[in-house]
Amino acid sequence: MKIKKADDVEARAVETDGADGVTIRLLIHETDAAPNFYMRQFNIAPGGHTPRHVHAWEHEVYILCGSALVWSADGERPAAGGDCVFIPPNEEHQFTNAGDDELKMLCLVPKDSG
Amino acid sequence: MKIKKADDVEARAVETDGADGVTIRLLIHETDAAPNFYMRQFNIAPGGHTPRHVHAWEHEVYILCGSALVWSADGERPAAGGDCVFIPPNEEHQFTNAGDDELKMLCLVPKDSG
Repeated sequence: MKIKKADDVEARAVETDGADGVTIRLLIHETDAAPNFYMRQFNIAPGGHTPRHVHAWEHEVYILCGSALVWSADGERPAAGGDCVFIPPNEEHQFTNAGDDELKMLCLVPKDSG
Repeated sequence: MKIKKADDVEARAVETDGADGVTIRLLIHETDAAPNFYMRQFNIAPGGHTPRHVHAWEHEVYILCGSALVWSADGERPAAGGDCVFIPPNEEHQFTNAGDDELKMLCLVPKDSG
């Protein structure tokens, strides 16, 4: 087994077009020989957001803390610490930090994503 | 998209042999049409534990709160809120609540598990 303190995992700035104030930590990933899916943690600064984009794979998200607005083709809905969010494949989406504190969330994707 | 408050998802007692004081919530699962992997939340009462068992699929775990002892062939190691745990396929393992408060953790598995 591997046990890691998430805060000790290196945080990298997300430089993708459309991202603002976002870092990513690869908690359980390729280097761990995870065979099917990957666990990442995103921290989003107040006012920051992920890109508004669409792709062929799903997101399974768990909000650890903070307040989000989640935009998709369904509309914009609030989500907060303790909520889980499922974005199915091919649905455009964007996460925005709508609060005054850092938004922290897990976002898991299948191995063959991006 | 789907957004759920994890605490609102039905908790079912885990009746598997060797489980004690454990409930499971299917946060993102088959009924959500999750195509590749499933997000479950386990709550373990103080002194409770999951079964000591082994299977052909991995666990990707994130400890939400509480104090765990994680046993595997590697030995027994502590894990607490904010830690992630990777149990690779075919490694025997067991999670025990070693604290005085409820242990809450996400445990994700591939779709074709169990």
